Amino acid sequence: MLQYQPLNEYRAMNYARKLRNMFMSNAQLDCSEIGDGNLNLVFRITDKGSGKSIILKQALPYARVVGESWPLTLERARIESQAYIIQQSICPGFVPIIYHYDSAMALTVMEDLSNHLNMRKGLVARERYPHFACHIGTFLARTLYLTSDFALPSQVKKEKVVQFSNPEMCKISEILIFTDPYFNSETNQFNPLIADKVVEIWENNQLKLEVAKLKEGFLTHAQALIHGDLHTGSIMVTKEDTKVIDPEFAFYGPIGFDIGAVIGNLLLSFFSHEGHTPDSQERIEYQAYLLTMIEQIWTYFEKEFRDLWEKESKERMAVIPGYVDHYLLQILEDAAGYAGCKMIRRIIGLSHVWDMESISDPSLRAKAEKLALSIGQKLVLERRQVQKINDITSRVRQIAGWGE
Amino acid sequence: MLQYQPLNEYRAMNYARKLRNMFMSNAQLDCSEIGDGNLNLVFRITDKGSGKSIILKQALPYARVVGESWPLTLERARIESQAYIIQQSICPGFVPIIYHYDSAMALTVMEDLSNHLNMRKGLVARERYPHFACHIGTFLARTLYLTSDFALPSQVKKEKVVQFSNPEMCKISEILIFTDPYFNSETNQFNPLIADKVVEIWENNQLKLEVAKLKEGFLTHAQALIHGDLHTGSIMVTKEDTKVIDPEFAFYGPIGFDIGAVIGNLLLSFFSHEGHTPDSQERIEYQAYLLTMIEQIWTYFEKEFRDLWEKESKERMAVIPGYVDHYLLQILEDAAGYAGCKMIRRIIGLSHVWDMESISDPSLRAKAEKLALSIGQKLVLERRQVQKINDITSRVRQIAGWGE
Repeated sequence: MLQYQPLNEYRAMNYARKLRNMFMSNAQLDCSEIGDGNLNLVFRITDKGSGKSIILKQALPYARVVGESWPLTLERARIESQAYIIQQSICPGFVPIIYHYDSAMALTVMEDLSNHLNMRKGLVARERYPHFACHIGTFLARTLYLTSDFALPSQVKKEKVVQFSNPEMCKISEILIFTDPYFNSETNQFNPLIADKVVEIWENNQLKLEVAKLKEGFLTHAQALIHGDLHTGSIMVTKEDTKVIDPEFAFYGPIGFDIGAVIGNLLLSFFSHEGHTPDSQERIEYQAYLLTMIEQIWTYFEKEFRDLWEKESKERMAVIPGYVDHYLLQILEDAAGYAGCKMIRRIIGLSHVWDMESISDPSLRAKAEKLALSIGQKLVLERRQVQKINDITSRVRQIAGWGE
Repeated sequence: MLQYQPLNEYRAMNYARKLRNMFMSNAQLDCSEIGDGNLNLVFRITDKGSGKSIILKQALPYARVVGESWPLTLERARIESQAYIIQQSICPGFVPIIYHYDSAMALTVMEDLSNHLNMRKGLVARERYPHFACHIGTFLARTLYLTSDFALPSQVKKEKVVQFSNPEMCKISEILIFTDPYFNSETNQFNPLIADKVVEIWENNQLKLEVAKLKEGFLTHAQALIHGDLHTGSIMVTKEDTKVIDPEFAFYGPIGFDIGAVIGNLLLSFFSHEGHTPDSQERIEYQAYLLTMIEQIWTYFEKEFRDLWEKESKERMAVIPGYVDHYLLQILEDAAGYAGCKMIRRIIGLSHVWDMESISDPSLRAKAEKLALSIGQKLVLERRQVQKINDITSRVRQIAGWGE
């Protein structure tokens, strides 16, 4: 196991068999590759007798994320496994259990989440997740607060900044979220029916200036160990349970980026129902549910964050009256801006979301995409006017034409 | 030379003799220890024959900076030598030449600046330095811009953030600049005659909230490789020449911190002349000279920064109209705030400045210190209203009673 080699199903089974305390020596194992093959190999190994199953996730030394080959080191596998371990320790139960990490093989052995559904798919199917807002609000508050300068001794935090330096993955975000969508770049891919709106964005200097400021925050503002890619495709759900996966983009960055990712992706789903749900009453009901979910996520986040601030602060300045209010307001403003960036890049840039892509009628998809672009721009441009979570959702209601 | 041991004058001479291409083998060397002994040993080695001299600076594994012993690793010697090398490469001639760095001995061999005067002393003596504003403005612009995300490829900048992770030295600043002066802390030391003003500061929650925000910027805002301790005691001058020394506090932090350090320390000197220069015409003339110097420093800084922005930007977003103006305004606001913090800590906190300490009459010193505290607070509280450098200097004129 000392030298890296990509696994195949046969090798994966052999690897799994040698893991300590995992399977009986005579277990009959079954293996299938279930990854999308872009960045990683993902194998599910099942013990046919006991039904017990695990996941082997192995990083590949390249990524087909920018059309052509974009070489990536295996370093992201280390980042991912170490981020998982920290998240598990400060927010138990909200990430898959990590059984083993093999640095030479860039391989993580972890809990199988076959009983969970990728949340993006659940949202397209208008599923409801009654505990999700509480779960993700708590996850965000705990993972972000407890890795920040407020909770960690000064030197420990700086060691973690170094440990989670993640230049390769950050570069992908810098280019694909904060740069290319705002220029006529080769990586862009968009529905030809929205070309006029895209050109408007390329020519909107005020918007681009605000995006530049948000990009600067992403590049420099090392507030907490953020997940870095917390879209609804990185969340696995059941009615009862929530698991956040794939933290390979983790690094010390702005807290609002993770919250904005969740909000932005819920809003992409919101507008995708223009295509998925023709019955307007059904659609509006579900869309209203999504807006309530966004409001609840912030409410749970804020409650837990204030609670941690009060009980867990190592920072002596935290006791100053008004500091936590100011800090939370900054996070909310950032979250609004990053939510907007996340929406725009998924419509104009390289990597789209299944919510929108699965609308087969291009003109219906264009309608949804234009609405998403409108709110995306509004969130970027007006984020400094956002004082409470309803200042975000009321803007969505307005764009959706609900007469607010 | 493989194992660390502190040098004495005898060992320093032997060390110097073994340096390649430095002294003739039969040279008659002379050595004297010239450091203040708090953090480092500093030896000057002179060749009596040729008159050639060099400096050996060696870090000690402790520091008497907080009254009792505060252990420090030798890591800061590495940081210092590597920061010097970068500064020398992007702003040649403004730092001493580094001849050799010995990591095991935590020792740097460098240019002797015996012909230069510590600027703090020069300012107390009302010396004028006609090139200083241009020199330091250029140094600030070049060292800060050229180590930022605007000039460096994304991955290179992140490698440098790791290389210059400097938790030990940052912690000293976090405590002594941004925390202890705002509470009744053991480390504080102040003139009993200003006790009422100090208590006012401890009770001023609005001020403390703004300091907390500036501290958060210091902790998280990794904009550029800053010097980290750029007071006038870290600057050696002649009428013609300027050398910036002692970058052992260097790390990736907010650009405004270095600029604020220069401004804040020039303002400390400004008010110290209440004590040093009883003749009011002489005093006001020199104080006016210092304010002009501050204005010119910013003007030179801004000019060079804009020039670099235009010619050296690797950041695609840099071309967006208005971005450089916005970015410079943020730097100026930060600089105002950090200048205020730097002034307050030198009056209330552990480490005072010679400008003030050398005023022997305590009540005269108290007068100068109170004025310095007033402008320090004003700069922290009103930094968001600062739109141009004159918004800083005009506030100083007001506090000084020059009827603006």
